Amino acid sequence: MEPRLSLLTLGVRDVAAARRFYVDGLGWAPAFDVPGEVVFLQVGPGILLSLWSGAALAAEAGTDAVDGSRAPMTLAHNVGSPAEVDAVLAEAVTAGGTLVSAGQSRDWGGYSGCFADPDGFRWEVAHNPGLTVAPDGTVSIGAAE
Amino acid sequence: MEPRLSLLTLGVRDVAAARRFYVDGLGWAPAFDVPGEVVFLQVGPGILLSLWSGAALAAEAGTDAVDGSRAPMTLAHNVGSPAEVDAVLAEAVTAGGTLVSAGQSRDWGGYSGCFADPDGFRWEVAHNPGLTVAPDGTVSIGAAE
Repeated sequence: MEPRLSLLTLGVRDVAAARRFYVDGLGWAPAFDVPGEVVFLQVGPGILLSLWSGAALAAEAGTDAVDGSRAPMTLAHNVGSPAEVDAVLAEAVTAGGTLVSAGQSRDWGGYSGCFADPDGFRWEVAHNPGLTVAPDGTVSIGAAE
Repeated sequence: MEPRLSLLTLGVRDVAAARRFYVDGLGWAPAFDVPGEVVFLQVGPGILLSLWSGAALAAEAGTDAVDGSRAPMTLAHNVGSPAEVDAVLAEAVTAGGTLVSAGQSRDWGGYSGCFADPDGFRWEVAHNPGLTVAPDGTVSIGAAE
């Protein structure tokens, strides 16, 4: 697994309220925006901050499998194919991580699975055909087709 | 405040155990390493992941000021001077954030303060004279003098 953070997802109580703070308050331009559902903000070369419903995050992450120290957030590591997702998940388990959810097709059009590090911090390993990173680090994200 | 994440700090139970997973298990090379205290790993251009004692993180962050939804982690936004730290903290409060700890000199040689976003996620705004980012995004971090 390369040392690379692709996306940090914060599980928020109210996406619209979080959007008002980051977009209207701080003036950060969304990279992708589904009103009331999710907002993606680019916060560095190749890196996105995602504001997503905490309930939806918990449902997708399958948090029942890990202990109570987990945070309402997920770090993501994006790779180029579903097969790479499965390979990285296996590598993380060999390294001492815990499998939280096996690689599977997701409603948003991609394929992902999650592992937890020794403290229960979740890493999602994902293939998202709708997300590309340009050579200058600019991230494009949209609905996967 | 620019849309820029400088550092993501995970508050862990045991720094040595977290290090075994990320460094020995996954093979990620530390950017800076104080055995048993803290490990910094570069996870993107200009971006570090920090593994730090959760108790020390809570003590520095002054978490008593925010509600129970907070996570054992801090997002950081680094700037060029103590005056910029104070200006960004004020901007975040104007945008609807909550001041968690005012800008102050820190034991590690820099100056920082924290605000919480509407969900209680902490952002540390920091001036760290020991941290520099090269044009290619490589981060150098060491003890501040």
